[in-house]
Amino acid sequence: MEQYDAVEILLVEDNPNDVELTLRALRENKLANRIQVVEDGAEALDFLFAKGAYAQRDVEALPKVVLLDLKLPKVSGLEVLRAIKSDERTKLAPVVVLTSSQEERDIVESYHLGANSYITKPVDFDNFVKSISELGLYWLLLNQPPR
Amino acid sequence: MEQYDAVEILLVEDNPNDVELTLRALRENKLANRIQVVEDGAEALDFLFAKGAYAQRDVEALPKVVLLDLKLPKVSGLEVLRAIKSDERTKLAPVVVLTSSQEERDIVESYHLGANSYITKPVDFDNFVKSISELGLYWLLLNQPPR
Repeated sequence: MEQYDAVEILLVEDNPNDVELTLRALRENKLANRIQVVEDGAEALDFLFAKGAYAQRDVEALPKVVLLDLKLPKVSGLEVLRAIKSDERTKLAPVVVLTSSQEERDIVESYHLGANSYITKPVDFDNFVKSISELGLYWLLLNQPPR
Repeated sequence: MEQYDAVEILLVEDNPNDVELTLRALRENKLANRIQVVEDGAEALDFLFAKGAYAQRDVEALPKVVLLDLKLPKVSGLEVLRAIKSDERTKLAPVVVLTSSQEERDIVESYHLGANSYITKPVDFDNFVKSISELGLYWLLLNQPPR
């Protein structure tokens, strides 16, 4: 399971177009080598807490950043966020909410639950790619994650 | 006190060289218009909690980001961070620890107290300016703060 322990970005996103655009933006900045994509909230929790298909993973090998959509199948993004931030093993993992929601309620609730940052997905293609590039560079190269 | 309520960046930094470099980097990106510089932890708390010289400030007018050095006179950066993140009026303010410390203890303690991000100041001049530019663009233009 070494490939899972080396994951630097966990992308939790059910929209295939957004996944493709995100991977493209990260690839252009050579940041996509160690990314794991999961498509619903339940799989995100399995990955993070080393359960189910990810049972062999080291739960303490935190990604450098979790990019978390809010509207997800099975378990919502806010529930995933709550789970990450209320467990001592995972709470220090930086989580960036990456969503199309601009609702103040989602923003405030995300910060209350401990989100490190909240980014609204630009609807425009070029701006989307640019935002993901900046976000990737910030959290992978500039930010200092807990080891 | 309207000028204080419009503050977008609170820079808590006692080193005049670092203040000057930070302002220069932000100015180059046209991000320095609404910045407040305070030089010790006690003044940071006065500003954030609208006390002392800042008593007329609206405590709910949160900056978009607080850039917080750790080694500060009077009240340490970690104590300022603890105060911000344990008060309902200020806890949603994004706080980026910006420090020369690379000690794992400081990193982990900062995240535990609720820091949104932890950046180690580059010692090299050009890299310092570049990092501050990226940091400013991220937190002022990309991140969505709570309103």
